[in-house]
Amino acid sequence: MTYLCTERMEVIMVFVLKPGVPREKIDRFIRKIEADGFSTILSTGTEHTVVCLIGNTAKVDVDFIAQTNDIVEYGRRVTEPYKAVNRAVHPDDTLVRVGNVVIGEGFFRVISGPCSVESEEQIIEVARSVKKSGAALLRGGAFKPRTSPYSFQGLNETGIKLLLAAKKESGMPVVTEIMNQTQLPLFEEVDLIQVGARNMQNFDLLREVGRCKKPVLLKRGFSNTVEEFLMSAEYIVSEGNPQVILCERGIRTFETMTRNTLDLSAVPLLKQKSHLPVIVDPSHAAGVRRLVPALSRAAVAVGADGLMIESHNNPAEALCDGAQSLDLSQFSLLMDDIRRRVSFEGKLMS
Amino acid sequence: MTYLCTERMEVIMVFVLKPGVPREKIDRFIRKIEADGFSTILSTGTEHTVVCLIGNTAKVDVDFIAQTNDIVEYGRRVTEPYKAVNRAVHPDDTLVRVGNVVIGEGFFRVISGPCSVESEEQIIEVARSVKKSGAALLRGGAFKPRTSPYSFQGLNETGIKLLLAAKKESGMPVVTEIMNQTQLPLFEEVDLIQVGARNMQNFDLLREVGRCKKPVLLKRGFSNTVEEFLMSAEYIVSEGNPQVILCERGIRTFETMTRNTLDLSAVPLLKQKSHLPVIVDPSHAAGVRRLVPALSRAAVAVGADGLMIESHNNPAEALCDGAQSLDLSQFSLLMDDIRRRVSFEGKLMS
Amino acid sequence: MTYLCTERMEVIMVFVLKPGVPREKIDRFIRKIEADGFSTILSTGTEHTVVCLIGNTAKVDVDFIAQTNDIVEYGRRVTEPYKAVNRAVHPDDTLVRVGNVVIGEGFFRVISGPCSVESEEQIIEVARSVKKSGAALLRGGAFKPRTSPYSFQGLNETGIKLLLAAKKESGMPVVTEIMNQTQLPLFEEVDLIQVGARNMQNFDLLREVGRCKKPVLLKRGFSNTVEEFLMSAEYIVSEGNPQVILCERGIRTFETMTRNTLDLSAVPLLKQKSHLPVIVDPSHAAGVRRLVPALSRAAVAVGADGLMIESHNNPAEALCDGAQSLDLSQFSLLMDDIRRRVSFEGKLMS
Amino acid sequence: MTYLCTERMEVIMVFVLKPGVPREKIDRFIRKIEADGFSTILSTGTEHTVVCLIGNTAKVDVDFIAQTNDIVEYGRRVTEPYKAVNRAVHPDDTLVRVGNVVIGEGFFRVISGPCSVESEEQIIEVARSVKKSGAALLRGGAFKPRTSPYSFQGLNETGIKLLLAAKKESGMPVVTEIMNQTQLPLFEEVDLIQVGARNMQNFDLLREVGRCKKPVLLKRGFSNTVEEFLMSAEYIVSEGNPQVILCERGIRTFETMTRNTLDLSAVPLLKQKSHLPVIVDPSHAAGVRRLVPALSRAAVAVGADGLMIESHNNPAEALCDGAQSLDLSQFSLLMDDIRRRVSFEGKLMS
Repeated sequence: MTYLCTERMEVIMVFVLKPGVPREKIDRFIRKIEADGFSTILSTGTEHTVVCLIGNTAKVDVDFIAQTNDIVEYGRRVTEPYKAVNRAVHPDDTLVRVGNVVIGEGFFRVISGPCSVESEEQIIEVARSVKKSGAALLRGGAFKPRTSPYSFQGLNETGIKLLLAAKKESGMPVVTEIMNQTQLPLFEEVDLIQVGARNMQNFDLLREVGRCKKPVLLKRGFSNTVEEFLMSAEYIVSEGNPQVILCERGIRTFETMTRNTLDLSAVPLLKQKSHLPVIVDPSHAAGVRRLVPALSRAAVAVGADGLMIESHNNPAEALCDGAQSLDLSQFSLLMDDIRRRVSFEGKLMS
Repeated sequence: MTYLCTERMEVIMVFVLKPGVPREKIDRFIRKIEADGFSTILSTGTEHTVVCLIGNTAKVDVDFIAQTNDIVEYGRRVTEPYKAVNRAVHPDDTLVRVGNVVIGEGFFRVISGPCSVESEEQIIEVARSVKKSGAALLRGGAFKPRTSPYSFQGLNETGIKLLLAAKKESGMPVVTEIMNQTQLPLFEEVDLIQVGARNMQNFDLLREVGRCKKPVLLKRGFSNTVEEFLMSAEYIVSEGNPQVILCERGIRTFETMTRNTLDLSAVPLLKQKSHLPVIVDPSHAAGVRRLVPALSRAAVAVGADGLMIESHNNPAEALCDGAQSLDLSQFSLLMDDIRRRVSFEGKLMS
Repeated sequence: MTYLCTERMEVIMVFVLKPGVPREKIDRFIRKIEADGFSTILSTGTEHTVVCLIGNTAKVDVDFIAQTNDIVEYGRRVTEPYKAVNRAVHPDDTLVRVGNVVIGEGFFRVISGPCSVESEEQIIEVARSVKKSGAALLRGGAFKPRTSPYSFQGLNETGIKLLLAAKKESGMPVVTEIMNQTQLPLFEEVDLIQVGARNMQNFDLLREVGRCKKPVLLKRGFSNTVEEFLMSAEYIVSEGNPQVILCERGIRTFETMTRNTLDLSAVPLLKQKSHLPVIVDPSHAAGVRRLVPALSRAAVAVGADGLMIESHNNPAEALCDGAQSLDLSQFSLLMDDIRRRVSFEGKLMS
Repeated sequence: MTYLCTERMEVIMVFVLKPGVPREKIDRFIRKIEADGFSTILSTGTEHTVVCLIGNTAKVDVDFIAQTNDIVEYGRRVTEPYKAVNRAVHPDDTLVRVGNVVIGEGFFRVISGPCSVESEEQIIEVARSVKKSGAALLRGGAFKPRTSPYSFQGLNETGIKLLLAAKKESGMPVVTEIMNQTQLPLFEEVDLIQVGARNMQNFDLLREVGRCKKPVLLKRGFSNTVEEFLMSAEYIVSEGNPQVILCERGIRTFETMTRNTLDLSAVPLLKQKSHLPVIVDPSHAAGVRRLVPALSRAAVAVGADGLMIESHNNPAEALCDGAQSLDLSQFSLLMDDIRRRVSFEGKLMS
């Protein structure tokens, strides 16, 4: 499909066509609109075909167009500030392909692995184990954003290399976090680029990953609204990269018993307002291992398309975030539970 | 069981006894402790028997007592500021009886009805319908706390009477909100007294309902922490009323797409730290009808003991909170879904 | 002046009259409006005279009325949900009289005293000292809202008596907190009734103090917006009690170095939107003594009409909130500084 | 002075020496410590001399060292996670030199200018005017972080050039925001590099500006705690750049009448815990022009070292943030008021 990327898209109108309309009728409709001085974008999904009208629409009667063109199912103005990620513009669910794994509506994928890649043995042991337990993707941090300059900052380039070794060994696609755009060349063989919560409004980085051909995992900033989250996704998609997965990971509130407050309402909201896949990270939200299973179950039920769960072969000695990591057998047990639930929801897991 | 209510309980120690210990051994253990100058409280649940030691425990070695008394399974100091509601003091789940309905672990109960009682026809129509759909309790506001003095403030005494008429008609136990302790005489036939979010720290009201024999539904204040919530329950229980149900209903955050942010992490936290039942109110949290089904599903999965869902025979004309109320057929459909899920969790619903 | 109290006041229009208009012209203007089927309220301040038009104003052209009646300076619709506390309805600053002390624009008053009344010696020692330092009112808690039922809850009735003894001894008017409306008879000789932050939305209590003839000090709830704060004041004023003083005391945020975050922006906002006096409580906001002087200086500069500062003759042994109380000599030093600053602002302090 | 930059500094001890100790005694003290296997750092300020002991200090008695070495005034462990920015390590106030302007304790500096550089005429007109009104530095955005990809993003390189033209024309040092480290070469002639609120935890950017020789203006993230703010400053200073100015600009809360809630308590907290200068940006905090004067007055009184105020020659037509910008005559009036207040505080302004 075609995505939009223009200053003028701030005023757009969307016409969803009836199913099975022949292409020549669509072309005639588009020519008619363009003859009135508007630009158009044709977006062809598997279930819906949409024609977007772009321009000064102040005097255009959207209902009149819808009613007088029998190929149109319905029309509406897109008043939200996000356009390319808006479900109105693209009614079909977006499916993102990461290596051989499809992420999006109808599927449920679990990403797992340690907060930080620490050694070849560690990451390979974790990879083998979480794969066996049913994880679809392997995560592992190489560049770590840490509040203190004196905390462990990740293995950097070496971390990426070890993660890729684990990818080769396990056959799993891998995801790891980028901290600035100068690191992009190191991400050539990484399957899914993570933009972390603290970088959700690092707009220059968003633009750069928007120019990549790689899928992007965008985490919600811990103090950003759902609308700001969608606007950050818009930065990526409007640059031409529609392969974006959204990840809710908890927001900062006054509550102190959890590290952050997991905002599960954001999942149905995001799925309603956007066509992008939405996953949930209960580990960072809770900050304590004990809450991860219950929050994972809730994420399946609330309609998420997947989970990102921290696991470690030895949480007690993890260099980072050990308190929230499951050990490998806890993860395996949780996956057995999740598998039953995903099947209850009628979704595919593997 | 006996609940604690003393200034000195701020330093207490808890000994959970092994199963099946004969009463005379327990008495001997208690006499020994008391001989050392401590007070004790014996709490006998269906599964666990607990002896609490109260007094200046600074020099007491809890492990030594546990190891040298073979009837003791384990001992621990209760360092949390909440005692009577603490699961350490009372390891068994509390089951609260509201009319003929049991609320607590192993069950899943749905409370439904309108924000406000508006007329006899309305409340009776809603009562019959939600009962048929599977609701266990009927809610309906008579005294309404409203931000503006110019908004509809409820039918007051008349509202209570109409609610009781609907109780009689439908046979369902009823719950309604109290706004100050002078209203208590009006609640004689009300089955469950609700203390609303804005009154969660109205300590005088908490004390008064703590002196009642009636079960209390305590809603979390929209800006109160989980610990403050438990401390407010402690006010009620420490006055001698152990029949308290906790209700998570969303907290105030920076997010604006929902009225509040439903904090589902609070459910497993509360269940872990306390023995009281915990239910969830997705209607007030979301503030929009559309999110209620997904959040209800998540509440079942996260381990809640029930739901409180606003329903109305004509939401478009409701005098209060219409935007978040389900109509009666939406509620019925949601209940079909919830019933399947409760059964999946291995809990009883009706 | 007359205050408004009617359901229909939700749609009102306000006409501020030119200075010095003779009464008979005003009466003619009012008769003309009433002839068109509207109710009116005449509000006569020392500087401004205002006529409020109440009724279905949908088809009324406010500018037309203003332009065609030469006694009118300007007219505007009051769209805010608060009316009686709205500066549009009452352009003059309200001055509240507490005993012999006037509080409001042009003055700067400091209220001081301990968190809790603990003994006759304590409250009298503090009263004498803070009076000498320049405090205008004496505070002292008798009924204390405490998160824990096991914390010191105040001396209750005895506390009130001791406070009144200190009033007699020192000649200072006194302020103390009410926790529920059944306590009102005990407040007969209290000069200023405080409604605390946790009771800001205890609407039944607001209504009751609105029916008193006594001035009320209303503290902002720690999680309430400025608009909600004004709506709670509206509850009091619309019941007929215009003697309300607003108090900003910090809001709950994610910051942990202070107990709450003092929201000084609320002061100019409240003064702009309302005619009521606004004071600041830096002690409860900060929760640490060390920040009180700097925040007090900022409160003077930002335009507050006074301060409420906790002081104690022996903060280290205070039964409540000792960490945030100044000792009597710290308070005296701070008052010297504040006096210089109040004089710089051109306001009167004593 | 020397700043610290080592992994091991997480456990350090600080000895503040008595005034006027001769260098040879200091050297002897240092040799003695180093003979025990510790590293040391000598930090010589204008008023205080400090010796830091670095290493495994678990068994070191800080008081014993202080008492047995008569050149030591006092010693303490630095338990805070921030070290180089900690006032314990560096008791003297840091003064930052920006061009010919000194910023820090004892001075009060106002930075002003438009949100965005829009044209040569605009920025030069503003520069001349704010200089005349008493501003010490000129601000003007060239790279603008915007929530929406469709909003004006700044003039970029051209913006920097126009700002430098205004610098030349007016003789004022200039400050502008950097969005990523690849832009650093463009900041060669910029006097003060601003790291914006959204980049406060862009740790790679912090490290890079820490390797510059230029002063840095670090704005607090709108959802970051004071401790996180200091840790971000630590990233810069620990890389070797001690020239950091902190800027409080409002935090995200539930309040909606202001864009953010200005946290003025942060000013005395930051000044107490750190030796770095602290300024306040009331324009971004409030988001509305009308509150800027009152908040500016409060900032002077609370102890800030300066202000950053948005001004524009034509706010109504500003491409960005017009609603919060003062026009040039409003700014001039405000500066007259501020000048009086700065003089009242005994600080220097120009």
